[in-house]
Amino acid sequence: MDNYKEFLLILSSAGIVGFIAIVFVIRWVLYYQGGLAWDGKLAEFNWHPLLNICGFIFLQGLAIIVYRLPWSWKYSKLTMKFLHATLNLLAFISAVVATVAVFDFHNDAGIPNMYSLHSWLGLTAVLLYALQLVLGVGVYLMPFTPVSWRAAFMPIHTYGGLLLFGSVLATALMGITEKLIFSLSTDPKYKDLPPQAIFVNTLGVLLVIFGALIFWIATRQSWKRPTEQFLHTLHSERGSEVESKVGPALSQLSDGAEGEEALGEVRRRINKIDDQVN
Amino acid sequence: MDNYKEFLLILSSAGIVGFIAIVFVIRWVLYYQGGLAWDGKLAEFNWHPLLNICGFIFLQGLAIIVYRLPWSWKYSKLTMKFLHATLNLLAFISAVVATVAVFDFHNDAGIPNMYSLHSWLGLTAVLLYALQLVLGVGVYLMPFTPVSWRAAFMPIHTYGGLLLFGSVLATALMGITEKLIFSLSTDPKYKDLPPQAIFVNTLGVLLVIFGALIFWIATRQSWKRPTEQFLHTLHSERGSEVESKVGPALSQLSDGAEGEEALGEVRRRINKIDDQVN
Repeated sequence: MDNYKEFLLILSSAGIVGFIAIVFVIRWVLYYQGGLAWDGKLAEFNWHPLLNICGFIFLQGLAIIVYRLPWSWKYSKLTMKFLHATLNLLAFISAVVATVAVFDFHNDAGIPNMYSLHSWLGLTAVLLYALQLVLGVGVYLMPFTPVSWRAAFMPIHTYGGLLLFGSVLATALMGITEKLIFSLSTDPKYKDLPPQAIFVNTLGVLLVIFGALIFWIATRQSWKRPTEQFLHTLHSERGSEVESKVGPALSQLSDGAEGEEALGEVRRRINKIDDQVN
Repeated sequence: MDNYKEFLLILSSAGIVGFIAIVFVIRWVLYYQGGLAWDGKLAEFNWHPLLNICGFIFLQGLAIIVYRLPWSWKYSKLTMKFLHATLNLLAFISAVVATVAVFDFHNDAGIPNMYSLHSWLGLTAVLLYALQLVLGVGVYLMPFTPVSWRAAFMPIHTYGGLLLFGSVLATALMGITEKLIFSLSTDPKYKDLPPQAIFVNTLGVLLVIFGALIFWIATRQSWKRPTEQFLHTLHSERGSEVESKVGPALSQLSDGAEGEEALGEVRRRINKIDDQVN
């Protein structure tokens, strides 16, 4: 893997920041907002930020970068597709339960549903996420889907995934803003910046940093999972067959920067072939 | 250009959606929020959403995709760099004046500054945008900057640009949420979804669609501005010189999909060379 140390640094930063964000949201709902329950009251509402941050954001972020973890490259592409789909499914279930929690809370308190921009964008994101899941499973996990469809749909699948991740993050930041204004509307007020306000603002900043790190990892071409063919070549002695398919660059491989560049070129060429069949 | 019709469709959609968003924010501040002035009151605050949406979002979006407009390819890369920098500078000036407006309004009304998550992220975005501008001018417009620095900095410059654009959009959505809650706190309330709430929520949705379209245009590799060398080749008969540098693929060019793919491969190779020197 190119720039392996940089990858480790960014990945561990994302893990640490994501973990701290989870600790923050747990402390927010348990310490500042009265804990968790399923009673139609505030304690039920609290599942909304908790599940959205732990599931809809953290697990979704993990699902996005899971193909890029070099330790996963020894597993087959199909295994990793199932892991990617499972993480996204868990994220989706979290989002659905989080949505039910807020509807229950609103209904019990006589607050109208679906009036805020946060709710409009949030529900749209959940519905489009469901669509993305169904299309993703249909196109990439159903054996009868033509390989040409898989290749043609890939740009939309990856763009849609990153757009949804960004939209969910933005919606979470709007939700934090709403909740702080509503729950800090009397003394102390949000504008007086009491400890809860600083604490939850910091949670928002952590979410932005987490998102920025995931986007960086997800958009580095050189950190893309090598193709099955390439991995097979690396782990066996039978390299000559592949070499004849990808042209002369493989034979030019050597140590140092030039070798890395040639390796990247070879990988790009095989990726292109691979995108047609996976 | 590959998929020219799709490009035109997406670009005109972005233009139309962006234009409607501008009309919406003008109507919001003029019709619902009492107009514009520079008096420390609400009418001064109104410059905040107006300038941020017209300048910090719309002009920034335009700056991001300006290299990809095929009608601009007849102008030199340097001319386009100046246009890109100018649009970003105008976006930055809009953001600064918008920020001053809200500080003035707060100070006059005795509202504390910098307490909300919106303000934390917004000011950070403005400061990082300034840094991006200074670094961008220093690296890409100063003739003494080594070409190796330009190539090395490019991934950070493009990633930083898109991340800032996304962050500014998210911050705008948080700002809309805040303003609707505060300005619709008595009858009619935001939760009762009066016309202003529906209108401004729709503005938020328009901003998300505008952002999504800009991201799509900005991340299609095949819509990237061809290199100077490539454009020169297209507009002259002296193609043989370039051909010898980029390998045999150029001679394989033919009509149809295979030709397009080969053309893309050639362009990628020249892009790589070009990134080293521009």
